[in-house]
Amino acid sequence: MAGKSDSQLFQNKYDRERKKIDEKLSRLLKNHKPKSLYEPCEYIISNGGKRLRPLLVLFSAEAVGGKFSQAYNAAVGVELLHNFTLVHDDIMDNSDLRRGRITLHKKYNVNTAILAGDNLIGIAYNSLLKDSKTNCVQIVSSFTNAIIEVCEGQSYDTDFELKKSVTVEDYLLMINKKTAVLLERCCEIGGLIGGGSKNDVIALKKYGHNIGMAFQFQDDLLDIMGNQEKFGKPIGADLVEGKKTFLFLRALEKAKGKDKSNLTAVIKNKGVEKDQIDYFRKMYIKLGVLEEAKDEIDRYTKLALKSISSLENKSSVKLFEWLANYLIKRSY
Amino acid sequence: MAGKSDSQLFQNKYDRERKKIDEKLSRLLKNHKPKSLYEPCEYIISNGGKRLRPLLVLFSAEAVGGKFSQAYNAAVGVELLHNFTLVHDDIMDNSDLRRGRITLHKKYNVNTAILAGDNLIGIAYNSLLKDSKTNCVQIVSSFTNAIIEVCEGQSYDTDFELKKSVTVEDYLLMINKKTAVLLERCCEIGGLIGGGSKNDVIALKKYGHNIGMAFQFQDDLLDIMGNQEKFGKPIGADLVEGKKTFLFLRALEKAKGKDKSNLTAVIKNKGVEKDQIDYFRKMYIKLGVLEEAKDEIDRYTKLALKSISSLENKSSVKLFEWLANYLIKRSY
Repeated sequence: MAGKSDSQLFQNKYDRERKKIDEKLSRLLKNHKPKSLYEPCEYIISNGGKRLRPLLVLFSAEAVGGKFSQAYNAAVGVELLHNFTLVHDDIMDNSDLRRGRITLHKKYNVNTAILAGDNLIGIAYNSLLKDSKTNCVQIVSSFTNAIIEVCEGQSYDTDFELKKSVTVEDYLLMINKKTAVLLERCCEIGGLIGGGSKNDVIALKKYGHNIGMAFQFQDDLLDIMGNQEKFGKPIGADLVEGKKTFLFLRALEKAKGKDKSNLTAVIKNKGVEKDQIDYFRKMYIKLGVLEEAKDEIDRYTKLALKSISSLENKSSVKLFEWLANYLIKRSY
Repeated sequence: MAGKSDSQLFQNKYDRERKKIDEKLSRLLKNHKPKSLYEPCEYIISNGGKRLRPLLVLFSAEAVGGKFSQAYNAAVGVELLHNFTLVHDDIMDNSDLRRGRITLHKKYNVNTAILAGDNLIGIAYNSLLKDSKTNCVQIVSSFTNAIIEVCEGQSYDTDFELKKSVTVEDYLLMINKKTAVLLERCCEIGGLIGGGSKNDVIALKKYGHNIGMAFQFQDDLLDIMGNQEKFGKPIGADLVEGKKTFLFLRALEKAKGKDKSNLTAVIKNKGVEKDQIDYFRKMYIKLGVLEEAKDEIDRYTKLALKSISSLENKSSVKLFEWLANYLIKRSY
């Protein structure tokens, strides 16, 4: 594990590179026409996100002996791609807020948001291509498969809203495609740009996949246990929307009697009232599903760390260890 | 010009390759999950389009010495990309029908159509990449710029709906991006895959651009002069929607007195009633703007033919001549 001074160094490195990504993103769309298309694109990419995905590209390139300077455009590309998914997902989910700001389709309109999202895909590929001089087919394929799998994941997610019997296994397939795949591809793309060996690239991919899974489990957990201000959305939103999260699906598997019928009623009623959230939280605690989610987060985090332990660059191994812990440090 | 028997040979060639593209498209999406995503994708690509864009890829590859077999996947890729634009445009325009069939978002719903369109982009790139083993960066860049320019063109089109003073020059910029660029890119991609020289690829691009412009002028003209059954949409639809087409903008520039105030009223009222279409058609004839559009079609067609006249492969030159005439043979 990383020591305290290492942690500070890694944090500084993350913050420094995150700032660079922000700068590159904000420069990218300046002076493009028409304004009606590029202003909404600028709005979405100035959302102050963590920039985890571009950082994964950079750190992965470095881990296999590459330089950050070889991978900045690809890093910007994956962030643009991620932002495209946010814009279109927000339309589909009819969300009002994203990171405390009004969503793109509410600020402008649905047509503008569809088109801005589409345009971000193009700009994302253009940026990626600048860093794809070698390995072009592999790099662009990896990126492309992320788009396809994210679409498939979003489709499964929508299916699950209507489907009565969703299993934990279904859920895992969905979150893999919807969340983990893109993180996996970021690591793969960084590894390919950095000129990594086949084994190194596989190790990095596994790291990305496993922290992606841990990240999604944490998201489910924070929905019910988190601090609203920190988390940026109302507590219990998943329950109110009747989302079939890991917590809900495991509770449904484990519950008996009245608990079971109340959970079944959530599916039938497509959600719960806000004043019922506390009741379900207590039920989740009683059934031990919050502990199970924590165990899953730990398990995936350990798998992530194990997968990158084979990398020769031990400084990068430490950085990735720090990053995994940084991502799941949020209190719950 | 191509003789009668050449015409028949070219027509047979077009029909044969078009059928192959249809077969490849229909095989591509079979057995993919989830059904909720791939069934809508299959619906849109089975629309029985002319497959002009994939044919341009194939013919361009052949024109520079390549083989069709090198370019089928790229050809399928551009058709998928074109279909993505159709799906998202139909949502934005709130269209009910496309080639006489109910549009995707009306058959399913808007969310499904957004996602199916997004997924088609991914599948399009995957298909393109299979034929991009050499020249990958150039080929994928060309394809990507088509996406960006189509988005920009669609944005300009939307802007023009609200803008009071749109010039013919604005209109040309818009149709170039919205229609001509993709045809230009199809020719470029085919030329690159076929291993064409820089000059040959430029010649092919110009051909694509110019037939794209001719094609769009013809579309405007057919809206008011065409045969509803052949054209597949109601006559005068552009006028009913208050679209600022070449005909409308030129009429506005040339009209005086009552004609001018009636045209200005179309902008203010955002369209005309169906029973007014005939009045405007007669006005267009009187002002000579239909003739002007025909002249533009001829001019762009000639530019297209001139641009490919430099190709060494004279059999391809004849094929491209036939294709240009085939595309504008529709009666008006």
